Amino acid sequence: MRVLSGIQPTGRFHWGNYFGAIRQYIAMQGNEQSFYFIADLHALTTVREPDVLRKNIQDAALDLLALGLKPEQATLYRQSDVPEVTELTWLLMTITQMHLLEKCHAFKDKKARGIAADAGLFTYPVLMAADILAYDSTHVPVGADQIQHVEVTRDIAQRFNGLYGESLQLPEAWVLDDSAKVPGLDGEKMSKSYGNTISIFESPKRLRKLIMSIRTDSTPVEAPKNPDTCTVFELFRLFAEPEQLLALAERYRAGGMGYGEAKETLYQAALAHFTPAFERRAQLEATPDLVEDILREGAHRARAKAQEVVARVREACGLGAKPV
Amino acid sequence: MRVLSGIQPTGRFHWGNYFGAIRQYIAMQGNEQSFYFIADLHALTTVREPDVLRKNIQDAALDLLALGLKPEQATLYRQSDVPEVTELTWLLMTITQMHLLEKCHAFKDKKARGIAADAGLFTYPVLMAADILAYDSTHVPVGADQIQHVEVTRDIAQRFNGLYGESLQLPEAWVLDDSAKVPGLDGEKMSKSYGNTISIFESPKRLRKLIMSIRTDSTPVEAPKNPDTCTVFELFRLFAEPEQLLALAERYRAGGMGYGEAKETLYQAALAHFTPAFERRAQLEATPDLVEDILREGAHRARAKAQEVVARVREACGLGAKPV
Repeated sequence: MRVLSGIQPTGRFHWGNYFGAIRQYIAMQGNEQSFYFIADLHALTTVREPDVLRKNIQDAALDLLALGLKPEQATLYRQSDVPEVTELTWLLMTITQMHLLEKCHAFKDKKARGIAADAGLFTYPVLMAADILAYDSTHVPVGADQIQHVEVTRDIAQRFNGLYGESLQLPEAWVLDDSAKVPGLDGEKMSKSYGNTISIFESPKRLRKLIMSIRTDSTPVEAPKNPDTCTVFELFRLFAEPEQLLALAERYRAGGMGYGEAKETLYQAALAHFTPAFERRAQLEATPDLVEDILREGAHRARAKAQEVVARVREACGLGAKPV
Repeated sequence: MRVLSGIQPTGRFHWGNYFGAIRQYIAMQGNEQSFYFIADLHALTTVREPDVLRKNIQDAALDLLALGLKPEQATLYRQSDVPEVTELTWLLMTITQMHLLEKCHAFKDKKARGIAADAGLFTYPVLMAADILAYDSTHVPVGADQIQHVEVTRDIAQRFNGLYGESLQLPEAWVLDDSAKVPGLDGEKMSKSYGNTISIFESPKRLRKLIMSIRTDSTPVEAPKNPDTCTVFELFRLFAEPEQLLALAERYRAGGMGYGEAKETLYQAALAHFTPAFERRAQLEATPDLVEDILREGAHRARAKAQEVVARVREACGLGAKPV
């Protein structure tokens, strides 16, 4: 069994990324056969500033390690450190049917909105298939909106196997629990495109300020309040133990508590939750060579596996097993 | 100055390939900075039988060397031995505009004929751009129908340079003289898709039989004939010196010569032209290790250059110069 998951370094991770995905990916780590990669080759389809990309890649590594990814329990690497993945991308491209790519969300959405798409956006499902297939991955944790990627990967692998004989391992989608709703500052779904996010590693001062800016209704302090329609309570739910949750719900319903107080409770809970990660991140930032060593060691492990798979695929197509 | 040219190993080369392109490519060799490659990654878009592809690749190497490509005057390599090309393909893909690919002939033609195209056929101009740009090629010899490829390559390189700073050398198309008409057995343009070809390395017996099957009109032996409307004469023109050509034209016009005699003259000329290549090919076939060494040495030279260029491109995008 190999679990594989990639995350794009397109900016700082926020609470939505964390509770919707990262926390669950990390919970699945177990041995060095769990592969997690920073998808820098994918990020190139949107990040066109080299300094920004460099910083994003570094931040992604620091964030993931700080949040609990353990090099001894998982292989962490930068996608661009395994060039066999782009080699496999081309080999798969030659047998990928156009209609598979035409139906993919990201391209369809952009096209529907009349935005000129680059070929990278159109063909990224093939790169994604190569990411997965290059390591004989068996399980790919995804949100419900990404099941399509695993399906496209299976379609591509099946077509390849049908044409050239069994060469590629068909992966399974491992659908994450996305029942945890993570609303943003305005109550809408937290998402970078809505500008309503709270980053995981905000400074305490800025975190407090952001939490205080969460939109609430105008019920007066004395009046009873409904926790179930309140964004602050919804976010508190992500951090709290059941008894803490019950206690705060009581205070909402009893009246006499202003939203400021609820926000303060949320702030304290978030701070407590992320403080260990903050401390680990500060340590990691102080030892950049250690982080680079982790990424390097991860790339070597990942690359050894990718070379094995790509050799198999090359031979199946009629090419030499390896470049001479 | 670097001349670069690729040829697809999709079957045995015929007289049309030879006079329209191969002979002219070979004439341009001059030093090891002339790069010639066997485009096996492109061939995968159409050749789906591994044994056939393996044989085609081997035949292409033997044919080119036998026809006069000299390892000391040119670098000959298999495209798939330089995986940096597929790495560059992805980096370029992220900035290639869809409309560039949509307008390319091969895809448009297939689409117009209602044939389902695979993504490899749609995106091959990006692989072709990478083939050219990976070596800072300055000149790309092409037939008139391939000028578009060099134009697309320049468009892609210009967009990359515009976004990330000057990183890629803009190549020039070097348009080959394709005024030499090479008709096939039926008088139409010689082309594999018309099934009217004469392969360069036909056995003498089969060559004779093919030439004897060239379609001619029914003018009787005694009657004068028009060389300018005769496929046999048209083909003879490719092999003959001016005085030989004049002599045969005289005999056409004088009457008393049957087409069988003209065909015999063509057969003898073709045989004489290709006999040295036949002999070289037999020698090469007997020393497969030597051929493999030439391809290996070529790949090493080509790869060293591609690594230099891809490192430059990776850094420009914000990735590490090399995979760790």
